[in-house]
Amino acid sequence: MHLSNRITHLTGGSDGWDLFNKARRMIAEGVQVTELTIGEHDIRTHPAILAAMNQSARGGHTGYASVPGTAVLRRTVAERVQARTGVPTTMENVMITPGGQAALFAAHSAVCDEGDVALYLDPYYATYPGTLRGVGAVPRVVRTRPEDGFQPQAADLDTAATGATSLLVNSPNNPTGVIYNRDTLGGIADVCTRHDLWLISDEVYDTQVWEGEHVSPRALPGMAERTLVVGSMSKSHAMTGSRCGWIVGPADAISHLIDLATHTTYGVPGFIQDAAVFALNQGAPLEAEIAEPFRRRRALAQTILAGQNAVVPVPSQGAMYLMLDIRATGMTGEEFADALLETHRIAVMPGESFGTAASGHVRVAMTIEDGAFADALTTLCGFAAGRAG
Amino acid sequence: MHLSNRITHLTGGSDGWDLFNKARRMIAEGVQVTELTIGEHDIRTHPAILAAMNQSARGGHTGYASVPGTAVLRRTVAERVQARTGVPTTMENVMITPGGQAALFAAHSAVCDEGDVALYLDPYYATYPGTLRGVGAVPRVVRTRPEDGFQPQAADLDTAATGATSLLVNSPNNPTGVIYNRDTLGGIADVCTRHDLWLISDEVYDTQVWEGEHVSPRALPGMAERTLVVGSMSKSHAMTGSRCGWIVGPADAISHLIDLATHTTYGVPGFIQDAAVFALNQGAPLEAEIAEPFRRRRALAQTILAGQNAVVPVPSQGAMYLMLDIRATGMTGEEFADALLETHRIAVMPGESFGTAASGHVRVAMTIEDGAFADALTTLCGFAAGRAG
Repeated sequence: MHLSNRITHLTGGSDGWDLFNKARRMIAEGVQVTELTIGEHDIRTHPAILAAMNQSARGGHTGYASVPGTAVLRRTVAERVQARTGVPTTMENVMITPGGQAALFAAHSAVCDEGDVALYLDPYYATYPGTLRGVGAVPRVVRTRPEDGFQPQAADLDTAATGATSLLVNSPNNPTGVIYNRDTLGGIADVCTRHDLWLISDEVYDTQVWEGEHVSPRALPGMAERTLVVGSMSKSHAMTGSRCGWIVGPADAISHLIDLATHTTYGVPGFIQDAAVFALNQGAPLEAEIAEPFRRRRALAQTILAGQNAVVPVPSQGAMYLMLDIRATGMTGEEFADALLETHRIAVMPGESFGTAASGHVRVAMTIEDGAFADALTTLCGFAAGRAG
Repeated sequence: MHLSNRITHLTGGSDGWDLFNKARRMIAEGVQVTELTIGEHDIRTHPAILAAMNQSARGGHTGYASVPGTAVLRRTVAERVQARTGVPTTMENVMITPGGQAALFAAHSAVCDEGDVALYLDPYYATYPGTLRGVGAVPRVVRTRPEDGFQPQAADLDTAATGATSLLVNSPNNPTGVIYNRDTLGGIADVCTRHDLWLISDEVYDTQVWEGEHVSPRALPGMAERTLVVGSMSKSHAMTGSRCGWIVGPADAISHLIDLATHTTYGVPGFIQDAAVFALNQGAPLEAEIAEPFRRRRALAQTILAGQNAVVPVPSQGAMYLMLDIRATGMTGEEFADALLETHRIAVMPGESFGTAASGHVRVAMTIEDGAFADALTTLCGFAAGRAG
């Protein structure tokens, strides 16, 4: 039976996760592997958040929740976004989604028709191009460069933007750990305005800022009307498995997105939304507590990396990853990651898993206990020195 | 800013839910309204299911769950489907979705490309045409008739099927309460085979069977390879708010649907899936317990309806609704429902909310306590008799 072209062409062939899958196979076979691959906390969701969820469910919030999200969660998100960005934001600007990925998909559905060109940046989070193809858009990639610290350049965006409908950005960035600076954001806003693009701004790492500041591009002049911000409880509150996120944008777009949600997901469990309200109401202290292990390990990494020169770190400014330039070894990211896995049973992601711009790099997730993390990174650096030597 | 045609044309104008919204406004203003509109249980999710959910969450199942669904839930669903239908079914035939609506959307995404013609039947569940438009398909409606007991006729399907890609059916049916008989299902299978259509079979009411039997069309000869079955915990286990459903189909289609889920939802909370496993493992007794109030109220309704002749019931065979022909009053369903609401503060859904085929009818949800339900239905019949005069 014939399946749709949309679904059969979604991944565009190899997904670049061969190394990841190989590590998983080794683990399944009983090999002890140090996994530095996936962007997931090594802690579970806080028991107090789970208690709030259980209380809500036992209290009877088990029927259909309002499709756009509960009023209290929409208001809580709106207040948080307004407090963090200064942009006037009400519940009419917010729709709750079952996770950030669902928000990415819905946002692109809202702005792209079949055949519309949707821009995204290389390196990219694994699902980005497939998400664009999934709504029928034509993905057009804009490459960033290691020599620019992976900050997208306005001239590149400008060239790519002709005839495009939308631009997807992600800062703090996965996989690079880079935060877009004000020059970069100014260039993005300028290109979006001149080419009449929608900006879809994935800000799910906005509580993981180690250096400088995170500025939401929605806060730049003229951008609130053309920006859809994707947010999530996953990274900020270690609630990856709860699948609770949101889109913040113009009220008219949100209104249509609610129509879409009625036909795609029909809302998010009310007890999960109540847990999210509880979590957000804990404010900055809980967010800092969740981010703290990554902040600590990033500091450890800075020390380790300062003591060697085989590996060149991309400026580590935010998110739970380090991107390391290993080109001095003469190896590709894939070759390096494979050899490191074979030799030391340490699994990192090849930069090539995220496109072509970060080839010759590897991404290290700071998602294991501090001592083991420091040991693994030290081993990685020694391994690179041996190969570079 | 321009939004996509897909999202701005999703609902196709009025959604036909004016009566429902009017009743909600009256309730918000403090008017006491007997609501017989929505297909949701008047009980909450069973505390034992919620305890299983809490145990799973507190036990640490709060990280990303496997995107296709947990192996144990996929296997549990596969075993249940095989036991109920006799069709060999393994976990490779099952993908878990965040609710039945997400399954409907994903199933159509998997088979329809932009511009493909997708068939559906009138009367229909409110989201059906928008779901088809949401994936870029062109909805083509096939009308069923009161005089056929709303059983779709093979000749009508055959005419509509030329050039079509898929057919969406729903038995036990919302809104009519009709269960498709073997003749109807045979006709559906024949048309699907001859026109090489995918059949998308929404079977979320498969535990609410009051008369006759529910046969899954996937079990008919040659149909397993071209059928995607949509199922859900919502109706069978009073878990509407948990948003947990599934698609059952050919392994190849499921494999591609998993790619799609990676880009649209990224899985379903693990603790909800564990709760679903617990619930399904309670077997038929729990399903019968959840269905019992509707069975009881349907028996009450049969008695009330037998004692009058102003209202002609559509054969009530399954699901939590009664469809009543009120054409003897000379009113449309909308006029009748509006007058009933104004006069007696009883809210029912006009048949026109579900298309054109059930005009002159109203749908009564059997979702309130038995005594109040019987009173409301008696009042409705008396009101109809007065108007039919």
